[in-house]
Amino acid sequence: MKLVEQLTDWRRDFHRFPEQGFLEMRTASIVASILYDLGFHLKMGKEVMNVDECMGKPDLKITSEHAKWAKENGADEKFLPFFTEGYTGIVATLDTQLPGPTIAFRFDMDALPIKESDSSEHLPTQLGFRSIAEGTMHACGHDAHTAIGLGLATLLAGNKEQLTGVFKLIFQPAEEGTRGAKAMARAGVADGIDYFIASHIGTGVPQHHFVAANNGFLATSKLNITFKGTAAHAGSEPEKGKNALLAAATAALNMHAICRHSGGDSRINVGELHAGSGRNVVANHASLIAETRGETSEINDYMKEQAHNIVAGAALMYGVEYSIDTVGEAISCKCSEALANKLATIAEQHPFIEHVVPISDNNAGSEDATYFLEAVQQQGGQATYCIFGTDLAAGHHHECFDINENTLLPAVEILFAAAKDIAKHDE
Amino acid sequence: MKLVEQLTDWRRDFHRFPEQGFLEMRTASIVASILYDLGFHLKMGKEVMNVDECMGKPDLKITSEHAKWAKENGADEKFLPFFTEGYTGIVATLDTQLPGPTIAFRFDMDALPIKESDSSEHLPTQLGFRSIAEGTMHACGHDAHTAIGLGLATLLAGNKEQLTGVFKLIFQPAEEGTRGAKAMARAGVADGIDYFIASHIGTGVPQHHFVAANNGFLATSKLNITFKGTAAHAGSEPEKGKNALLAAATAALNMHAICRHSGGDSRINVGELHAGSGRNVVANHASLIAETRGETSEINDYMKEQAHNIVAGAALMYGVEYSIDTVGEAISCKCSEALANKLATIAEQHPFIEHVVPISDNNAGSEDATYFLEAVQQQGGQATYCIFGTDLAAGHHHECFDINENTLLPAVEILFAAAKDIAKHDE
Amino acid sequence: MKLVEQLTDWRRDFHRFPEQGFLEMRTASIVASILYDLGFHLKMGKEVMNVDECMGKPDLKITSEHAKWAKENGADEKFLPFFTEGYTGIVATLDTQLPGPTIAFRFDMDALPIKESDSSEHLPTQLGFRSIAEGTMHACGHDAHTAIGLGLATLLAGNKEQLTGVFKLIFQPAEEGTRGAKAMARAGVADGIDYFIASHIGTGVPQHHFVAANNGFLATSKLNITFKGTAAHAGSEPEKGKNALLAAATAALNMHAICRHSGGDSRINVGELHAGSGRNVVANHASLIAETRGETSEINDYMKEQAHNIVAGAALMYGVEYSIDTVGEAISCKCSEALANKLATIAEQHPFIEHVVPISDNNAGSEDATYFLEAVQQQGGQATYCIFGTDLAAGHHHECFDINENTLLPAVEILFAAAKDIAKHDE
Amino acid sequence: MKLVEQLTDWRRDFHRFPEQGFLEMRTASIVASILYDLGFHLKMGKEVMNVDECMGKPDLKITSEHAKWAKENGADEKFLPFFTEGYTGIVATLDTQLPGPTIAFRFDMDALPIKESDSSEHLPTQLGFRSIAEGTMHACGHDAHTAIGLGLATLLAGNKEQLTGVFKLIFQPAEEGTRGAKAMARAGVADGIDYFIASHIGTGVPQHHFVAANNGFLATSKLNITFKGTAAHAGSEPEKGKNALLAAATAALNMHAICRHSGGDSRINVGELHAGSGRNVVANHASLIAETRGETSEINDYMKEQAHNIVAGAALMYGVEYSIDTVGEAISCKCSEALANKLATIAEQHPFIEHVVPISDNNAGSEDATYFLEAVQQQGGQATYCIFGTDLAAGHHHECFDINENTLLPAVEILFAAAKDIAKHDE
Repeated sequence: MKLVEQLTDWRRDFHRFPEQGFLEMRTASIVASILYDLGFHLKMGKEVMNVDECMGKPDLKITSEHAKWAKENGADEKFLPFFTEGYTGIVATLDTQLPGPTIAFRFDMDALPIKESDSSEHLPTQLGFRSIAEGTMHACGHDAHTAIGLGLATLLAGNKEQLTGVFKLIFQPAEEGTRGAKAMARAGVADGIDYFIASHIGTGVPQHHFVAANNGFLATSKLNITFKGTAAHAGSEPEKGKNALLAAATAALNMHAICRHSGGDSRINVGELHAGSGRNVVANHASLIAETRGETSEINDYMKEQAHNIVAGAALMYGVEYSIDTVGEAISCKCSEALANKLATIAEQHPFIEHVVPISDNNAGSEDATYFLEAVQQQGGQATYCIFGTDLAAGHHHECFDINENTLLPAVEILFAAAKDIAKHDE
Repeated sequence: MKLVEQLTDWRRDFHRFPEQGFLEMRTASIVASILYDLGFHLKMGKEVMNVDECMGKPDLKITSEHAKWAKENGADEKFLPFFTEGYTGIVATLDTQLPGPTIAFRFDMDALPIKESDSSEHLPTQLGFRSIAEGTMHACGHDAHTAIGLGLATLLAGNKEQLTGVFKLIFQPAEEGTRGAKAMARAGVADGIDYFIASHIGTGVPQHHFVAANNGFLATSKLNITFKGTAAHAGSEPEKGKNALLAAATAALNMHAICRHSGGDSRINVGELHAGSGRNVVANHASLIAETRGETSEINDYMKEQAHNIVAGAALMYGVEYSIDTVGEAISCKCSEALANKLATIAEQHPFIEHVVPISDNNAGSEDATYFLEAVQQQGGQATYCIFGTDLAAGHHHECFDINENTLLPAVEILFAAAKDIAKHDE
Repeated sequence: MKLVEQLTDWRRDFHRFPEQGFLEMRTASIVASILYDLGFHLKMGKEVMNVDECMGKPDLKITSEHAKWAKENGADEKFLPFFTEGYTGIVATLDTQLPGPTIAFRFDMDALPIKESDSSEHLPTQLGFRSIAEGTMHACGHDAHTAIGLGLATLLAGNKEQLTGVFKLIFQPAEEGTRGAKAMARAGVADGIDYFIASHIGTGVPQHHFVAANNGFLATSKLNITFKGTAAHAGSEPEKGKNALLAAATAALNMHAICRHSGGDSRINVGELHAGSGRNVVANHASLIAETRGETSEINDYMKEQAHNIVAGAALMYGVEYSIDTVGEAISCKCSEALANKLATIAEQHPFIEHVVPISDNNAGSEDATYFLEAVQQQGGQATYCIFGTDLAAGHHHECFDINENTLLPAVEILFAAAKDIAKHDE
Repeated sequence: MKLVEQLTDWRRDFHRFPEQGFLEMRTASIVASILYDLGFHLKMGKEVMNVDECMGKPDLKITSEHAKWAKENGADEKFLPFFTEGYTGIVATLDTQLPGPTIAFRFDMDALPIKESDSSEHLPTQLGFRSIAEGTMHACGHDAHTAIGLGLATLLAGNKEQLTGVFKLIFQPAEEGTRGAKAMARAGVADGIDYFIASHIGTGVPQHHFVAANNGFLATSKLNITFKGTAAHAGSEPEKGKNALLAAATAALNMHAICRHSGGDSRINVGELHAGSGRNVVANHASLIAETRGETSEINDYMKEQAHNIVAGAALMYGVEYSIDTVGEAISCKCSEALANKLATIAEQHPFIEHVVPISDNNAGSEDATYFLEAVQQQGGQATYCIFGTDLAAGHHHECFDINENTLLPAVEILFAAAKDIAKHDE
């Protein structure tokens, strides 16, 4: 099969069988199988993930139920066992045995808790690769990322004799909610990497455009907060209660009132509040689903610290207990200028690309690939985060999201050209 | 069958097939059938309920699904059609055709949204009359009330020749949440009644004790409040959002800060708050489940008015829309002293009763029978609310709630004695 | 001079030279001098006041400045030195040396921080005894109370040979703000007292009426709360600030949201909030002037404890320091029924009295005489708080407040009759 | 006298007699007198100020009292009458009668409500030119600005024959609180101006440094907010009150919770809150001193609109009235790049200047000169805001603030060089 067709097949297969963060068992098993067959050396699961740093990982029950689902839905039987506990990361290495730098690429694999559109206007529905897992959808292009990663692996393996140095492909779980990268970075996955390239498709960049470095990611923390109080009958003895609902309400309000930071952009959002269990009962439990962000990691740390104080203060006010779980986190990061410029030059030479932006500062949400960028830069390496523009049927995280598959092959070819070129000119 | 056994049979049947407010179709059809056979004249459904005053009535879908359930679970086929729209009230009249006053008794029929205990310690489970409607339970004794009402009907009909005047038995839906009485009172059900007696079993009064008048009911309003805002991505353009969660949080907080009233007890409780649909989305909807109470109707009105202002102000603050639905309401009321004393004297003569409290001011939650009391008193009649003490296996609204069935027959006999005596001595 | 004229003279003199709590130096020195001349044994100042329990006492500067004022405005030079530190309480004892009970009466002496009306309609202005201390006014009748106390002393001393037992007259400072009684009670002033009568004039009770026991006093705590944060420029580096204003605002709001108590009436009021020192500066200080009340001392304790938690929580939220000073406090109390009835009987016999209420439960604000009542009752004595009705020109604490001086002599005579009668019939 | 000495004399005289916004009567009268003597054509007072746009102007009493002060403290008697109503702006024009552009310079004249340090370390104290107006101080360098303006006038008038075109010197009142510029701009003062240069001394820029264009000013609105409620006794009938304190507290809290704006920096500060008049009184009045800011005028408008909604909502919540007065306002603005570069080039040639920053984006608070910049640019002109670095004894608005007077002459010379050069090269 020609690579261009293979890419589409892979992407549609992953699209049809989407898996959420730390549950990418079918996906990972297939990825591992293909990479193994291509001759890559594999490290998988807990070998490449620090189990203490996996944030917001589903519980055992969900995990084991999904393992059954994966088995029933086409997972590779040989590799599935490596991933059934939910540690679904893979690091695949191709060592040319020739002197040269270590160059790494990161691809994320997870889908979102979104019900995919069943409109006949929606291409995946029309062409029969709409999600079979109702309520889960690849609405951010990670299906394409995984396919691009396999495409790059195919070119690297097929042209090994032209290459020098070492190539690593990092397949990361749970980028959504910024939950998975930290666990891989803290497991030492970035050790020894000289050049690191993460990439994303879409994000508003038009078809035929390329951004060689995106600096605008906000550091972020995803916080699950609970308050536990005491129930009481609201009519006959309300004073016996400890009101978790009011603690949550005052926490939410005061969290939004956290002072702005003169150092740059900050964000706070209590996206959900659920409290209480009856009209005439003093609410004995409440939960907040919240997030902070900062233009720099310092600003996000400031926001997070203030949020902690506010939650603790609200609990003290109402005599209730509280807990704060960090279920996702990402830092901010600046791309390496030299690598960005190199990548820009390479992309300019590809016939598909009409416009190249070497460095963009556009705020583009948050990304936990920043943990890899930081780790690589801290050990003296270079790192960047690039974007392949593509036509979008609807915005990211929308039920009608879809990419233009014509972008897949050029993306693979540009990454392969970068791999070759960087290895050759490193000194 | 002896009445004492019949009472138990009725009560256990209603217990096994509990129905929530405005859904008492099976119950009402059986009650109607029995009363009809005893020779009572019946008015049912919309004849005795003002459709505009039915608060918190389930929607059409729930109502019609339940009608099917009732049919499949033993409803009386002849009378079921009168109740399938959810107007489940009944007024049964026995006219002796002899001069005398009109004396009315009220019984409520609805169950609660509580899952009944399946512990083998729980008598209904042990004896096989545990609720078959999972999640619905007679946990407040209205099954007993309905049985007592039928018992009283039996005695009245069987001793018609000894009686003078007119007797009315009011079977009311949806007392829980104080939703059903107002609709019956506003339909004129209390017109022409000279004496009115509502009764309850339990409520903390011990077995063998009797309270002839309970004055401590708080006026109350049950409010469902919603805020509707605008969603926006909390990271990339939060200012486009209209935050319904913060409107709800500030409303909840300020509602609890409503100023105390020097006229007497007041209460406010926001029992539930649910808002938002995702961590990184500005919440576009929020709902509050709340209630106000007051020692007098004036105080409750004050609380309700303040709550309205606060909700409107919170909506204005955040540029969101709001709605406030009153899904239940009760007023306060004072029992008629003369009738209470008469009833106390009658009860004292019953061998089962060891202790009588003529008038109690204990705060005992809220009750919408107060609408009947007020209506009767306003037209010059006398009214009271009495309590038959009983052993409780667990408190009201508890999953293990159960009464001592030995209380049933004495309750019927006391009410019958009252009917006879009041009719005779009225002048 | 006849007693009736003397009473008016005294009252008008005290009215003209009003002194606020813990500053009643001129008043106390004159009171002491008169009592001394009448033959009473005196204990004064720190002898009868626990210095650690003087709440809300003015600072040294205000105290010493007022001492100068007192000296310049007619204080008794011999006794003034006993009071210049602001411990202005007096306990005067008349021991008949004959067997009998110890009977005590309490009179309060302090004025209010109110500017007296200078309208010519206002009798004190018209007759030339308007306050010369601008901004301080006897607007609650304590000038009359002090005069009545001296009148009672005159009758007791003048009729010593008819009396048995021991009589104590307690002249208390700082009743306003409920600040002074606790310090005297905690100094042991109530030790050995068998019968205790506190009294007040006015309070809405009509002329010629008498209330022998007032039970409706709410327990109360007067709280001064401060928050201390960190200032910062609100434009250039707001995140450096610790916002005391927001801590105070959220504390005030949540304090008013303290849950109502099913045990009885409660109150909370943040009467004043002052914060910040400039528009563009993050506020680094804030203060709240607040009070809690409760129908019982337990309820007030509950309110106070919640308020503490809320203040501590608000401080934690914003990283600011806080302090809470209790600058006034009173408990609730029930009058002794037997003593009340005795007093009622005595009052009924006085020709001036047309109507007697033995026991009233009307809520009448707060009073710290309750500390004496409680102490006396705890050691087995009887105690009551009575009210002499009088015409009022305007309500208490109003700038036009004035009493009907015709009430003075009957008040003295009733208290004297009680003293005589109780001593005689005690067994 | 040599200009360098004259500059110091002027600056010290203004420093010694500081006047706050809209009260610069002495200052303006002296400025007018000097400009008149130099041959400038003058427009003054209401001729150059839109009376409806004077924000935060002191009331009549303060204004007329200050007029007396000015007269007694050395105001120029001929010109003082033009300013005694508090419209203290001046536009002085020098028309060379030769073709050429109109070039304008703005200088602000007002002082701050700060008590100047009386430490002997503080140079103005040491040298005898400390403020004689206790509580008012030139702590932001506007005394120097006024002196520089007079110095520039001296050079322009003295070298008129070398010049072409028209020169305008704008002396503006009430820059502090951003209150005065809008009134002058709205009076048409900017009409016909081709080039406009505002300048400031200090602001953290080091001695010998020069910033040719400062873009970092935040748009701002200064808001005085009041709530008017109803007082009530907090113990006896609190429900009769309408609580202005709680309305203010909830407004303050929710204003700080206004959502961040993705378009750039925003700020909100409630710097002061004062409410209530007694511990046991439901507060019937409250006031907030607040400000909003935005990186763009649109963002500030957004903040201001949200603040309005919140205040209105808080008032609705508590049934109180509210008012919002805008007592100061400034917009954001971008300097004209061409003019900035021209000015940079000119400054580089001055021997005193060691370092030139052509364009700075540093956030530097707010400035209402932006109204002039915008007006000039909108009619096709160029405008910039430059900064003369200087040593500071302490930061702006500090009681020990002082500049290095060596900066005065170079500042005058650079502005004069710019005037000459721009006029010459305009086409």
